[in-house]
This record gives sequence, structure tokens and C-alpha cells, in this order.
Amino acid sequence: MSDVKEFHLRAIGTIHTPFTKQKGTPIQPPMAKDAQGTIEILPEYCAGLKDLAGFERIWLLYCFHLTSGFKLEVVPYLDQEKRGLFATRAPTRPNPLGLSCVRLLSVDAAAGLLRIRDADMLDGSPLLDIKPYISRFDAFPDARLGWLENVVNVSNKKADNRFSDK
Amino acid sequence: MSDVKEFHLRAIGTIHTPFTKQKGTPIQPPMAKDAQGTIEILPEYCAGLKDLAGFERIWLLYCFHLTSGFKLEVVPYLDQEKRGLFATRAPTRPNPLGLSCVRLLSVDAAAGLLRIRDADMLDGSPLLDIKPYISRFDAFPDARLGWLENVVNVSNKKADNRFSDK
Repeated sequence: MSDVKEFHLRAIGTIHTPFTKQKGTPIQPPMAKDAQGTIEILPEYCAGLKDLAGFERIWLLYCFHLTSGFKLEVVPYLDQEKRGLFATRAPTRPNPLGLSCVRLLSVDAAAGLLRIRDADMLDGSPLLDIKPYISRFDAFPDARLGWLENVVNVSNKKADNRFSDK
Repeated sequence: MSDVKEFHLRAIGTIHTPFTKQKGTPIQPPMAKDAQGTIEILPEYCAGLKDLAGFERIWLLYCFHLTSGFKLEVVPYLDQEKRGLFATRAPTRPNPLGLSCVRLLSVDAAAGLLRIRDADMLDGSPLLDIKPYISRFDAFPDARLGWLENVVNVSNKKADNRFSDK
């Protein structure tokens, strides 16, 4: 095993959504169908937005900025049992990195402004990266699920405060 | 826009693959069907691997550790034209975060060892996070592509040195 490695990242923008606290926030984009959001990109990165508008969906990589600390076993929103943290999408993680596939509504590259739909993140989330959603790399509709295989009826699932320290 | 925000991340493990330099590395997991890899998880995080084995696929979030710097327009591997960086999956990015959906072959939680297939990352890549691949959150097979819509014949595409500084 190599030595401990540290990495310093810097926000490239800020995500704005209707959700100001964890309680009531949609737990994933498919549960947030009507939630629109906007993304402000810092001026020095706006030139990188060229050609993005053609994509229907984008990946947002961002920080879970209202969490701190983590436990290696958690009871996820969609279950009643403790599960290994890396088998869940819980926001309290060793590296608090969020990953959401959202629908891209519009891109104003000059103004550094994106409009998105299916926003499931908290207002003010610091954005770290945008990647285009490319189905041949990212879509595996039949991938076998683990503990989630038997979980149904998730369409309106909202977060509570279990992962918040605010 | 909020103030500049910095974040300090730390590797939770190391990804081992057959690929020691960018040239010849598969550019995405679907182009790496026969490439197996292993992941060593640091002992202090192994308890978080519980329940992961049931998932057929996992997301790996990792650092592109052999790149430095970035340009906001790049010619991606799958095109001949310059494209906005955020409309590509190029490894040179403001925050050098890699995202790959790989097939999970086995989990030895006690030893902190995962075996994976479809490995498309460089040997020694520092791992930042593992998330389960959950098709209802992640699979959008019909999502419209942008400039990639007309790109075909990508099945054996390998990287060259264009994003390497080694």
C-alpha cells in the first residue's frame, strides 16, 4: 500500500437548489423530478462549458458541505438495517463527495449559468466537476443490486436529519 | 457567488491495474472488458465494505494522479475537434477527479481487497470513494448525447499521450 496521499480541491462553482436543510431533500435525482436548480460557474472556468448544451444529462461532482465525520456502518434512507457505508450513498463519507446525474435544461456559457432539473443536493453545495452523461459508459440498467434489490416504493423518498450535524 | 472554497481529501485505498502509462489505457470501462484490477482499501476503512458484494457494479471516484494542469478546451480521444473541457471526460481537469463504473468480482472485507473488471484507470490511482451502482439513480440509456451523438466505432479506443505530462 502506498503512503497516505492528500489532495486539495477547489470549488469551480456553486449549486443552488430549493433545499436548505437535509430534512425533506430528495435523496436522489429520480425523486426530485420537479426540483429545478441553477449552477453558477466561476468566471475563470466558463470557457470549459462549450459544447455541454447538447447533452441531456450531466454528472455533478460536489461536496456534501453540511456533513462532518462519518461512520463505517449506517442505516441508509432506504432501509432499516445497518449497512456498510460504501454499499450506500449516504452523505457522511471519509471524502464527502456527492455524485448526481441531473437533467441539463440550459447553458449560458458567457454568464457561467446552468439550469438543471432533478436537483437533489443542498443549496450552496460547492461544485467540483461536471462531466457529460454518456450512456455507453454510464448506463447499466440491468446491473444487479445488493441489499437494495428488494427495496420498492422509493419514488417519493425524502431525507431526514440522520446524516446532518446542523 | 460564494468565496473560494478548498477541500482536503485523502485516499482511502489504491487501485491496481495492468496500465502503467496513459498510452494504451482503455479510455472507459466498456473498452476495458478483459482488464482486471484489484483495489487495496486502507485497514481503517475496511468495515465500510460490508454489504458491497451484492452489487454487480460500483462507482470508483479516484484521482487522475499522472496529470497536472488543465486547458478549458481539449481535443477528446473520440473526436478531432476542440471541445469544452466539461463536455468531455478528459483526465486533465481543474479538480482531477476520475469516475468509472466497474464490474465488481469479489470483496474480501477482512483483507480490504476488491477484485474488479472493466478497469480503465492507471495503476496506482488513489481511490477517494466507492459508491454502489444503483440503476434507478444512475442508468439513463436513452439520454441524448451532444457532440458524441455521431461518434461510432469506439469499442477498442485506447488512450494516447495527449493528456500526459510524463
